[in-house]
Amino acid sequence: MGANRIVSVDLKTRSYKVHIGEGLLAHVGEIAHENSLAGRAAILSDEHVAKLYSEPLRRSLEQKGFVVSSHLVESGESSKSFAVAERVCEALAQSGINRQSFIVALGGGVVGDLAGFAAAIYYRGIPVIHVPTTVMAQVDSSIGGKTAVNLRAGKNLVGAFHQPRAIIADTDTLKTLGRREWNEGFAEVIKYGVIRDASLLSLLEQGITSMPDLVERCVKIKASYVVEDEFETTGNRALLNFGHTLGHAIEAAAGYGKLLHGEAIALGMMAALDVSVRRAGLSPEEAKKVKAVIQRCELPNRLPGEISLAAILSTVLADKKFVNGRIRFVVSPQLGEAVLADNIVQADLELALDSIR
Amino acid sequence: MGANRIVSVDLKTRSYKVHIGEGLLAHVGEIAHENSLAGRAAILSDEHVAKLYSEPLRRSLEQKGFVVSSHLVESGESSKSFAVAERVCEALAQSGINRQSFIVALGGGVVGDLAGFAAAIYYRGIPVIHVPTTVMAQVDSSIGGKTAVNLRAGKNLVGAFHQPRAIIADTDTLKTLGRREWNEGFAEVIKYGVIRDASLLSLLEQGITSMPDLVERCVKIKASYVVEDEFETTGNRALLNFGHTLGHAIEAAAGYGKLLHGEAIALGMMAALDVSVRRAGLSPEEAKKVKAVIQRCELPNRLPGEISLAAILSTVLADKKFVNGRIRFVVSPQLGEAVLADNIVQADLELALDSIR
Repeated sequence: MGANRIVSVDLKTRSYKVHIGEGLLAHVGEIAHENSLAGRAAILSDEHVAKLYSEPLRRSLEQKGFVVSSHLVESGESSKSFAVAERVCEALAQSGINRQSFIVALGGGVVGDLAGFAAAIYYRGIPVIHVPTTVMAQVDSSIGGKTAVNLRAGKNLVGAFHQPRAIIADTDTLKTLGRREWNEGFAEVIKYGVIRDASLLSLLEQGITSMPDLVERCVKIKASYVVEDEFETTGNRALLNFGHTLGHAIEAAAGYGKLLHGEAIALGMMAALDVSVRRAGLSPEEAKKVKAVIQRCELPNRLPGEISLAAILSTVLADKKFVNGRIRFVVSPQLGEAVLADNIVQADLELALDSIR
Repeated sequence: MGANRIVSVDLKTRSYKVHIGEGLLAHVGEIAHENSLAGRAAILSDEHVAKLYSEPLRRSLEQKGFVVSSHLVESGESSKSFAVAERVCEALAQSGINRQSFIVALGGGVVGDLAGFAAAIYYRGIPVIHVPTTVMAQVDSSIGGKTAVNLRAGKNLVGAFHQPRAIIADTDTLKTLGRREWNEGFAEVIKYGVIRDASLLSLLEQGITSMPDLVERCVKIKASYVVEDEFETTGNRALLNFGHTLGHAIEAAAGYGKLLHGEAIALGMMAALDVSVRRAGLSPEEAKKVKAVIQRCELPNRLPGEISLAAILSTVLADKKFVNGRIRFVVSPQLGEAVLADNIVQADLELALDSIR
């Protein structure tokens, strides 16, 4: 596997490695074997991704002697449901998957969240390997062990912390992404630039020359937050929510499926930059720089006209606890740095949303 | 709370106490408060138990300032499903239950398993307090953090390890149990007698004088296995499966709901005693003593005529891995002791089942 990059996620007994590079799909069997996995492997993927990558993945696993079954779900957020999780678990049982087996999640964020959740609860937890195939999943969602399905009451309200046994990010699989799906992944890259490493923003301005390089840098950042705060108890991991409080609300208010997750996060970051300038001392020049990068990545910088501010705000209010009229909200006092502010009031959010009207 | 008994379950950051005694229902609010819980409490119970104990429980919680909501499921094994778990989670969301809230499981094994599972996955895990109201739940199922729902493919195939924040076993609630429900709980007491503390068997022979005393002794035994092997990885906790390999198969072959869980376990123990005599050196006199206790507790000692041995065996074969024709099976070489034998063959099980025909 030559020049491939490996990032270690150091979580004591739950430690694992993230493998990043071109052509890694052919090495999944090898990596599973190195991680002491044996027996049956259940590939979980969506119809779209499976068509492209399921067969090479299966071959790689079979070459190492694994007995492979494949399980498909529909593409899209609607697969992150209790009903689909149940169907998956029944199918795993039918295929003879047990405590000695493992799951391979092949796909983007939806498949990773669903497969990770199934792995967390099937037989009270079996191993999972993530093979993320989108920018968003490679730089963000596959790392850190958060798994989830949705309730009618809200996204990701049900889930488990379940760290994978390994993550294998084959950057070749990104080449088949549609333009919007490619672009949306950069919302999380921009976020890392704002909260931790401003040089990522300059890189995006100049244009990326190596995806393995970019993915590796992002994985290192994400892993550092996960290692510091695995179960989101100290507040450190919460800094990764920069742009997400409003982003989630915008995504919900638009109606799921209207905006891609990354697109909504881009809008949430636009608003969070405005809050940061007004309340945290971020310089208007720095905010402008980020906004230019958002635009360069072909991510939206204006709210679609049909979304009402009232709808966004009411979602935030349902989701977040205002204490004495104040909300905890991640702001950036200067690029490459983020803090959790506890003095943000509703008017701040209204002004910020107005600024991207 | 005077003379009440407390057993500590020492699991480092997940440690908790089991409170055992009469009239404890009135102290649940107090105990929740002592365990640093605050905010909203969601009582989860079944229709039958709720009618009897939901109101005193609610009052106890409200007196300590908790905001209480109540959630009911149907009595019986069918509530241990994905569909009911989803309904419960949606209802929790509607009641404003969040990361800062907790669940109180009021009922027997079904409610405990379901509520524990919901607590494990809602917001990726919120605290749960168990208030077990059956002998079986007080001496066994509420302790140790195993939660589960069923698949069509098998019982308890989906779940999570999720230790409770506290367990409150009010032995007064046992007084309203029906005779079969009362009796079935003693199957697990007899099991503890066989695998760990033979004096429990003498106690059952002579007749129980104090339920709090009996529950305390059983909780201590169960807790010791859980503390040694929380996630069932060393094999120690597996010794608790004495009588359960065949018991589960008998329960399934009879058709769920036909035999109570404890009744099936009693039959499984009868067969496991036979295997122990033949293959592990248990004296026939000791086996006979246990069988007499099973009978004294009004638990079945003969298979119902309509269950075929073939059906039981095929369930065992689907559930357990035979390696070179051998199966791992818990046997007792002498009362008060159990080991995991790995030399048991199918003929041993057939003979044992024949012996309880």
